[in-house]
Amino acid sequence: MSNAAETPNLMEALVSLAKRRGFIYQSSEIYGGLNGFFDYGPLGVELKRNIRDCWWRDMVQRRDDVVGIETSIIMHPKVWEASGHVAGFTDPLVDCKVSKQRYRADQLFFAAVVVDGKTVGYVSALESEKTEEELRSAAESLKRKKGIQGSLWRIAHTHQVLAGSNVEFWRGGEPRDGFSPIKDFTEATEDQHSLIPSPATGEPGSLTPPRSFNMMFQTNVGAMSDASSVAYLRPETAQGMFVDFKNVVDTTRVKLPFGLAQIGKSFRNEITPRNFIFRSREFEQMEMEYFIHPDADWLACHEEWLKWCQDWLKSIGLPESHLSLHEHPKEKLAFYSRRTVDIMFKYPFGVQELWGIAARSDYDLQQHQKHSGVPHVYFDETTKTKVVPHVIEPAVGVDRIFLAVLASAYAVEDVKDEKGNVEQRTVLRLSPRIAPVKVAVLPLLKNKEALTNRAKALHEKLKRRYAVQYDDGGAIGKRYRRQDEAGTPWCVTIDFETIEKPGDTFTLRERDSMSQRRITEAELFALLEEQVY
Amino acid sequence: MSNAAETPNLMEALVSLAKRRGFIYQSSEIYGGLNGFFDYGPLGVELKRNIRDCWWRDMVQRRDDVVGIETSIIMHPKVWEASGHVAGFTDPLVDCKVSKQRYRADQLFFAAVVVDGKTVGYVSALESEKTEEELRSAAESLKRKKGIQGSLWRIAHTHQVLAGSNVEFWRGGEPRDGFSPIKDFTEATEDQHSLIPSPATGEPGSLTPPRSFNMMFQTNVGAMSDASSVAYLRPETAQGMFVDFKNVVDTTRVKLPFGLAQIGKSFRNEITPRNFIFRSREFEQMEMEYFIHPDADWLACHEEWLKWCQDWLKSIGLPESHLSLHEHPKEKLAFYSRRTVDIMFKYPFGVQELWGIAARSDYDLQQHQKHSGVPHVYFDETTKTKVVPHVIEPAVGVDRIFLAVLASAYAVEDVKDEKGNVEQRTVLRLSPRIAPVKVAVLPLLKNKEALTNRAKALHEKLKRRYAVQYDDGGAIGKRYRRQDEAGTPWCVTIDFETIEKPGDTFTLRERDSMSQRRITEAELFALLEEQVY
Repeated sequence: MSNAAETPNLMEALVSLAKRRGFIYQSSEIYGGLNGFFDYGPLGVELKRNIRDCWWRDMVQRRDDVVGIETSIIMHPKVWEASGHVAGFTDPLVDCKVSKQRYRADQLFFAAVVVDGKTVGYVSALESEKTEEELRSAAESLKRKKGIQGSLWRIAHTHQVLAGSNVEFWRGGEPRDGFSPIKDFTEATEDQHSLIPSPATGEPGSLTPPRSFNMMFQTNVGAMSDASSVAYLRPETAQGMFVDFKNVVDTTRVKLPFGLAQIGKSFRNEITPRNFIFRSREFEQMEMEYFIHPDADWLACHEEWLKWCQDWLKSIGLPESHLSLHEHPKEKLAFYSRRTVDIMFKYPFGVQELWGIAARSDYDLQQHQKHSGVPHVYFDETTKTKVVPHVIEPAVGVDRIFLAVLASAYAVEDVKDEKGNVEQRTVLRLSPRIAPVKVAVLPLLKNKEALTNRAKALHEKLKRRYAVQYDDGGAIGKRYRRQDEAGTPWCVTIDFETIEKPGDTFTLRERDSMSQRRITEAELFALLEEQVY
Repeated sequence: MSNAAETPNLMEALVSLAKRRGFIYQSSEIYGGLNGFFDYGPLGVELKRNIRDCWWRDMVQRRDDVVGIETSIIMHPKVWEASGHVAGFTDPLVDCKVSKQRYRADQLFFAAVVVDGKTVGYVSALESEKTEEELRSAAESLKRKKGIQGSLWRIAHTHQVLAGSNVEFWRGGEPRDGFSPIKDFTEATEDQHSLIPSPATGEPGSLTPPRSFNMMFQTNVGAMSDASSVAYLRPETAQGMFVDFKNVVDTTRVKLPFGLAQIGKSFRNEITPRNFIFRSREFEQMEMEYFIHPDADWLACHEEWLKWCQDWLKSIGLPESHLSLHEHPKEKLAFYSRRTVDIMFKYPFGVQELWGIAARSDYDLQQHQKHSGVPHVYFDETTKTKVVPHVIEPAVGVDRIFLAVLASAYAVEDVKDEKGNVEQRTVLRLSPRIAPVKVAVLPLLKNKEALTNRAKALHEKLKRRYAVQYDDGGAIGKRYRRQDEAGTPWCVTIDFETIEKPGDTFTLRERDSMSQRRITEAELFALLEEQVY
């Protein structure tokens, strides 16, 4: 048996399964696709809906202290001035004037090739799992070209994770004879800009100095198309909660501490979208702003939400073994931020951020109070004072959860067919909470009315409440495999025992154990009521 | 009692209630708002979610012939070339060069003032319920200014509904002495453009000829900001289904006839957004493309969906009395269109389109086949031939349903309080299917632990499956009123009979009849299971 961790090329296997079974398609595929945009197919949309619905039920409906909102994607541009996004939501961008390629400066790495203390040239490579390898090989080429003897590789390397990058790799040690430390293009000096070769051409002289590129998609609202009509697609849903804070306090009966939760699309014009749906340009967020009294124990509250989020991820089936925590170092936090901890997930392409839990002080409410001139206060009944609440923010992406779910649920196993022959099955071990199809109803034979009638009756009854599938096509083993690959936790087979023996029982086949047992309709509903919540 | 139809200024009452109870806020209100954008508050988001979820359950999960998808909002720009939106999704726009105001030409009306067969001048007014009144009054002013004697009003008027307009009003008859027929600015001759006064200034000479204004919001994807990177926010979700048609046919087991359904945001840069959430710039659609064999009985299929849609609207509580049908005249249909019927709803501002059911032939699939070069065919097993399916499209807006629901559910009634005094209650008669809160759990007294413990236990149990509210604040009558206004169908009061008498029964109070009866926990769950589906 091989599971996620053991499948070589797991990402390729997942992308292939996602397409083949209608989970995820490339957007506009018939027109060659659009980089960084994806569509969810029939199975994918159900899985995505279930992730959203589980979150909403647990976060909003089952809690007494959190209410939901849905704010517009296009908001007044002043929102983004106040939030700091107009000025600061940027990535450093480098152009290659020859190839017209564009790079994120912090994903473009370079090193000086040093011989006898003298730099003989520069090499460059883009961030990947092979960055250092590529730099070394480029250095070898340069060496040959310059007719230099001996080995360049006499330096020690230390293992580091680059801030903001997606992959871990080796970074150079102290500069000395051979190969300087690897730096990214944002660290290059002005002199170096023209000496570092473009990754597109291999030749120096064509790269521009890095410039700030704002990642918000811009549009114009109204018939005018000038500066006065500029608006942005939101790069996060969170500002909606801050901008509507006052309205919610004024029009509902919320009492501190309380949360405002939202699920919705956000947009970021990533220079280099990558890793499938992990970093795309259009994505969906589930964010919650938990407002607390300025004097409240914010650290305890932060810890509580950190725990809540981990528990929730486990409740939808993510294995604890794939989860870890990353505490942002104090010196890297924004000045207003008290603490940020990310729940990390072990993706096939590395350990990456899944869910950020941030203690953001009262920064956002203060900013909107300042920029709008509208007081953003809460009247504290106990102390009879007005306070600007502080906030704890758990923010997660639906698409990232989706990918984490796929990656950890995927397995290819050797199993025996009915005749004892070994065959392979692909199975998605999805939690019943989020599986797109909860139960497949299978009449043993397609052309036996007594079987199909009973199967159809059960199917009708089940589908009033659950997403179920009726499948009468092909051998029963083949149908089981089909459902395994779709992640359906249970198959119910209506067989001759159902119609010929008393008790009206079906064969219940479990996806993971592949075990079979007899079950009545009432027992089936009780099982679903317990497992699908 | 007054209901929707009888409440004067119903729209104002609805907008006020929507804000006051946290259903709908203006987007970015603290920054002065953004015209045509709205936020949904804590109660609103639940109502909206329920509308969406009911549609999805009935349209996708409970049907065997419809599957769902979710496509990206930003798609490849070629999608919109193929669909015709780049060339043709336009509104006629008129500028006033003096005031810098912009108008939709088809909402700007004018008439010539004719005396003794000679035009003495022009008057203009914007589309509203008072358009004709304003034109008349402007004509009177003109008459006085020109020193003309006698009455201008000797012509007959015929009652017409202007195509594409939102209001019904009176339109002039034959041109003769007095007042020419009222026309809109798209019907003006070139000579007339400079003679018609601007509604902003009252003076002629500043209006430009109408020009086509594309209603798609435009943005740029990637770091380039030029023609090569232009992309659009989708103005409809439907094209997603056509563009993914091939992928769905290739990767799932759908068989003709089958439907592809989607719920998602769309964007239209309306020149004049209006009527609250009825015509906004960012809105949410629920569209379904039902693909049928080219030889299938499309008319019967169209009729079936027309009926399905009406039944569905009734199932979520819209009264039959507010619904009507509007058959698009043959001569106004696009060349590829076979038939379009709109389900109309009697909104407070007039009878307006709610749900369009269109028979669109194979036009869209053919267009994408042509523009992408990718065959868009379905292999028909029976005839062993490849066919390009035709399509029936029911397309509805979530926000329009939301407004229809609010408008028909709203009522203000005289009721008697506990002491027999007459007071008013505002009530939203929302169907249990979509009500934001299904049950309010009310302990009779806040400070009696036996009551609150039982209430909390019930609340905990209910909220695992349903959206419920616990409310212990204020007199019981006041709490009922609060729930009436939120549209909560049932209140359950835990009173002394609950804790002192055998049977563990609660008082169930029904919102509409205000009747009360005793109910057990099991009966309550059975009631919910039946009514909330």
